[in-house]
Amino acid sequence: MKLLITGGGGFVGARLARTLLARGTLAGQTIKTLVLTDQVASPADLVADARVQDRTGPLLSQCEALKTEAFDGVFHLASAVSGECELDFELGMRSNLDSTRALLDALRACGQASGKPTRFVFSSSVAVFGPDAAIPMPSPVADDTLPAPQSSYGIQKLICEHLVSDYTRKGFIDGRAARLMTVSVRPGRPNGAASSFFSGIIREPLAGVEAICPVDASVSHPLASPGKTVEGLIKVFEASREDFLGRLGMNLPSINVRVSDMLDALEQVAGKAVRDRVKFVRDERIAGMVANWPTGATARRAARLGLHPDESFADIIRQYIEDCRKTPGGEAALKGLA
Amino acid sequence: MKLLITGGGGFVGARLARTLLARGTLAGQTIKTLVLTDQVASPADLVADARVQDRTGPLLSQCEALKTEAFDGVFHLASAVSGECELDFELGMRSNLDSTRALLDALRACGQASGKPTRFVFSSSVAVFGPDAAIPMPSPVADDTLPAPQSSYGIQKLICEHLVSDYTRKGFIDGRAARLMTVSVRPGRPNGAASSFFSGIIREPLAGVEAICPVDASVSHPLASPGKTVEGLIKVFEASREDFLGRLGMNLPSINVRVSDMLDALEQVAGKAVRDRVKFVRDERIAGMVANWPTGATARRAARLGLHPDESFADIIRQYIEDCRKTPGGEAALKGLA
Repeated sequence: MKLLITGGGGFVGARLARTLLARGTLAGQTIKTLVLTDQVASPADLVADARVQDRTGPLLSQCEALKTEAFDGVFHLASAVSGECELDFELGMRSNLDSTRALLDALRACGQASGKPTRFVFSSSVAVFGPDAAIPMPSPVADDTLPAPQSSYGIQKLICEHLVSDYTRKGFIDGRAARLMTVSVRPGRPNGAASSFFSGIIREPLAGVEAICPVDASVSHPLASPGKTVEGLIKVFEASREDFLGRLGMNLPSINVRVSDMLDALEQVAGKAVRDRVKFVRDERIAGMVANWPTGATARRAARLGLHPDESFADIIRQYIEDCRKTPGGEAALKGLA
Repeated sequence: MKLLITGGGGFVGARLARTLLARGTLAGQTIKTLVLTDQVASPADLVADARVQDRTGPLLSQCEALKTEAFDGVFHLASAVSGECELDFELGMRSNLDSTRALLDALRACGQASGKPTRFVFSSSVAVFGPDAAIPMPSPVADDTLPAPQSSYGIQKLICEHLVSDYTRKGFIDGRAARLMTVSVRPGRPNGAASSFFSGIIREPLAGVEAICPVDASVSHPLASPGKTVEGLIKVFEASREDFLGRLGMNLPSINVRVSDMLDALEQVAGKAVRDRVKFVRDERIAGMVANWPTGATARRAARLGLHPDESFADIIRQYIEDCRKTPGGEAALKGLA
């Protein structure tokens, strides 16, 4: 089978690609070709795999050519992140809305040529939820909570969920939308997401670097490990139409933890000296955005697919440390460990 | 003040224009200029008013020029209707989604030039609601019911509600969205809306013409008279930001009636011979779409603005008859009355 991952050069996309290549199959079929598109080149280990084709450039400019290139499945992860979209409205509309629509139209053209709608997983986000002056946001939010995004990023993700629903209902694609929870611990460097600190306050101290937490320790949020996130994307791809029960976005599983719980877990796994590298310096822009995010989430429909949250946040930290140790040169990320 | 009504040549748009011109003011300001845009020319009585400017042509092609033309308020009613959008997907995306976005961007440019966001009423629809395999649609639907549109028209309206929310949150416009219920009795000829029969089964018998009802007599649906619909649009425009309580779409009031109730009211007002001009011939395409529509709606937030539903469907029919009698040449529409 031939697969496409948009955003394949990003952290979640590259991890999904590695997992798929290691499995060798998806939905019972052998993966022969895996196309990765991203603004940046994909990691060298992926490009080295004979099954991988790497295409660098904006997704929007690649969609015209995709109208005549058939895929058996697509994971659409490419996205401008929340902080960027809030600072640059046009960027978000172009990268998240226009690009998704162009991709859907390309897949529609392919599906109509072949008579078979392409299976399509859209990575939506927990950021579709938010408080509304008239209707308080429940805590936790559920699959069927009324979305009321309070960020352009969340609005764009929600609009794309609706497009995926309609293109699927019309038979143009075989789509489904997985709402990703905030992924922690992300390796590497901070990114433009307002949620970036949810990884930074663990990653930086472990690397021996001071980290700034821009929100109060009492802030609670739904988190998932990179491994659970990738597992969720794959299960959502493999689920039958019947398993999915309608086309509304499905929350992926999360553990709902406070920042203080995260730091307690960090101390438990890595010691007090590591924890003490986290300083609290409130950032009003970030804190204001985070205050409009869910404090927790449930994922009942994902549980029907056999998807369950991480065991604990300490377990997530241990997975991160293990991942670093397995990565060539990854020990540098653990310089802060005694 | 200077106002714009898109879709000003349509039935609701023209009725809104007449009502505004007769009042002379909106939100306490004198209406000096009323610009009407539509694909078709506006009715002659409107064009004859010195305050009216009529602009014929697709809205999308007019938006570039609107970037430098300041308005004090906009009613955005222009829309392809539900049946058209289901038959011609591109038409719906262009007329309902692309045009709304281009209009919002034009108003944003104006608002940024003047420093004052333009007040904007978006006419959304009860068609944003629908059943989902996972989450049954409540009956009646409320302001905060989870929308799950089962038509491209409903999807496009819902996406535009989200755009209006985000443009308003960003301060680009001062927007609000009113979800119109199915308007009955519409005068004139059937249109491409799947809901067209909700007027046809009253209008045609009153004109002495046989009418086909394409759904069962037990079908229930939320309806509002043209007068109540226009009153709702005006109140939503005039409401303060505080009255509105958040940016989610607001249901306009409706009476929730079955087709059999409508025909009983017709018999009560116009006699059995008129009622007997309605024949039931099921149309699977129409019936399938209607089966995915709400059977009723509530409008709690609209009630806070002082908006209430029509008294009864018999009252709606009597209003229609009165409207016909007041319209030059309108007696022809009542030829079926004994």
